[in-house]
Amino acid sequence: MKFIITREQLVNSVQDVMKAVSTRTTIPILTGIKIEAHEDGVTLTGSDSDISIERFVPAEEDDHVNVTIEKPGSIVLQARFFSEIVKKLPDSKIEIEVYDRFSTHIRSGSSEFNLNGLDPQEYPRLPEVQENNRFSIQADLLKTLIRQTVFAVSVSETRPILTGVNWRIEDNELKCVATDSHRLASRSATVEASSEDMDFSEVVIPGKSLTELSKILDDSSELIDIILTESQVLFKAKNILFFSRLLDGNYPDTSKLIPNDSKTVMIVSTKEFLQAIDRASLLAKEGRNNVVKLSTMDQDQVEISSNSPEIGKVFDHVKTESLEGDELKISFSAKYMMDALKAMDCSEVQIQFTGAMRPFVLNPIEERSITQLILPVRTY
Amino acid sequence: MKFIITREQLVNSVQDVMKAVSTRTTIPILTGIKIEAHEDGVTLTGSDSDISIERFVPAEEDDHVNVTIEKPGSIVLQARFFSEIVKKLPDSKIEIEVYDRFSTHIRSGSSEFNLNGLDPQEYPRLPEVQENNRFSIQADLLKTLIRQTVFAVSVSETRPILTGVNWRIEDNELKCVATDSHRLASRSATVEASSEDMDFSEVVIPGKSLTELSKILDDSSELIDIILTESQVLFKAKNILFFSRLLDGNYPDTSKLIPNDSKTVMIVSTKEFLQAIDRASLLAKEGRNNVVKLSTMDQDQVEISSNSPEIGKVFDHVKTESLEGDELKISFSAKYMMDALKAMDCSEVQIQFTGAMRPFVLNPIEERSITQLILPVRTY
Repeated sequence: MKFIITREQLVNSVQDVMKAVSTRTTIPILTGIKIEAHEDGVTLTGSDSDISIERFVPAEEDDHVNVTIEKPGSIVLQARFFSEIVKKLPDSKIEIEVYDRFSTHIRSGSSEFNLNGLDPQEYPRLPEVQENNRFSIQADLLKTLIRQTVFAVSVSETRPILTGVNWRIEDNELKCVATDSHRLASRSATVEASSEDMDFSEVVIPGKSLTELSKILDDSSELIDIILTESQVLFKAKNILFFSRLLDGNYPDTSKLIPNDSKTVMIVSTKEFLQAIDRASLLAKEGRNNVVKLSTMDQDQVEISSNSPEIGKVFDHVKTESLEGDELKISFSAKYMMDALKAMDCSEVQIQFTGAMRPFVLNPIEERSITQLILPVRTY
Repeated sequence: MKFIITREQLVNSVQDVMKAVSTRTTIPILTGIKIEAHEDGVTLTGSDSDISIERFVPAEEDDHVNVTIEKPGSIVLQARFFSEIVKKLPDSKIEIEVYDRFSTHIRSGSSEFNLNGLDPQEYPRLPEVQENNRFSIQADLLKTLIRQTVFAVSVSETRPILTGVNWRIEDNELKCVATDSHRLASRSATVEASSEDMDFSEVVIPGKSLTELSKILDDSSELIDIILTESQVLFKAKNILFFSRLLDGNYPDTSKLIPNDSKTVMIVSTKEFLQAIDRASLLAKEGRNNVVKLSTMDQDQVEISSNSPEIGKVFDHVKTESLEGDELKISFSAKYMMDALKAMDCSEVQIQFTGAMRPFVLNPIEERSITQLILPVRTY
């Protein structure tokens, strides 16, 4: 194998596939990046066996030469060193050549590295994916869907299925739901289904996979193809394939968790409410589990309070745009509330309560595509 | 005590004194910040007993009211909470009032914190400093002196005196020297001595104190007064007093370490040389103690090389501006070399070697106010 590639293309591509490489893998070859040079360009692959990322650098693109292939072939190089080395090479062109026994020479300007490579035949093959179940979504919308739900997945392995986000497709509507059983985030959006007959309609994608995917995607209107199989999901962007395994098991039915009625409804400025919770949280973090208390007051305002016997107390008042229904005193996790408010992307938020012991619901005003649900904390 | 202060002034001042507050102190009152309101302003103090920082906020400054004192007094508040709280308060004005039993109310806009304060009488007094030994130096030059020497102090407590920087004053010349016994950094500068008779001419200031001082000072031409006593040094800037204890003991005589003659002299671009060492260091870090090798070559260039049996080898070539004297192969710590080169602030560096086993010296060309010395590593 021998090729010359522009440093910028190589650095960016290595950075993308590195997102799948774990240093804690039990499979030694997966500490490497697989590099394949073929006639039409160079393909890099990184994998931790849960996530696999394949990045293609076309030989020519927009009348610009990225890669000159002198001899096709392939090699696996230690990801950690290779990624550090390419970043620091002095010239804008990098030559990579494999000699006998996987010995690999990397030349750039006055610098030459000679790395011990690994046998590319030992590198696992990427899953083959049947394209029966396929739909498309814009990259920027996909990133938003992920950001608005993935924070609510469980970080505990007690119920592994809850560490993923449930994706359900029905009538060209994608609904994403995440819950750790103390709070729930839900977001739906219209997608373009390309397949005529979807074999099945529901998968659970590991939260970690979605977080890594989100880092690779640009905030662009590029259409991302999403292909579902029974055990894998594949996201196809321009020059990138992102594979993730799916979680096994049945996702709990969350549709009944969201209350239909409400007893107290308030509308507040998202920013002012978030800042008041944030201040109350300064003392709450020291006390019991970061719990703050909300009390409705006369005169269209609510009080946010918290106390830590050793440090002191805090009282904050937030003016409401509207406040209707029963009086209420309710306690909840400041962290969950802040996570939910940050995910809302709206200047005013409507919160519907059904008493101090029942879950409550956050929505943008007159907008149901995004819903955040939080369970209160009993404090007495 | 009761006063109203602008949030900006309070946040900045708290940030300054926090640099002296340690969470790992064995003296509980030192986890707090002392706040004193008197007629002409507010004074904040933080200390870890090695470093003490006093920050004054004048009631009025440049026709601008910073503080309105309603009742003088003092209190000590938990530094960690107080600093977080003031940053997040909603209004541009903050009112602080102490009630009975050190209970302290902090009000700003719709927000009210009620913190349990500590008895200000228990807070240790700052050292009283006699101003016999005093000189002045511009803040930006002081920061440069610190940056160019402090990285070379020892991080090991085996010889505590080496964890400090030696400051020696003679004939209005300040010479700063730091060494960890493997390398040495030295920088001198002209200062304005204000005292007629300096009682003594040499102190050793803990490296950590100088690092913290450097963070507080602006890059300005403001004159900083420096006052030496037997056990303390005091840096006086506008509205800030920075006290540090001095290290006990005799600093080793380093003047004889620097070789007078040289056998090989090279001049190279600081940046190109630094980048080549940085690349070689990528593999050297994996091998023996981050050691790289420099070899003189024909044709006015040197080779930097390194190898790690498991990962591979690297060879880098750096063109020299000039290369005179004996051939040379020498090994040294890539980290020490990079530290020294980064401290030089010059586009070209002159390196004088006296054989593979002798310390070598880095200087800017024809400039002796800054000298870096590195001991080589024996590799065979």
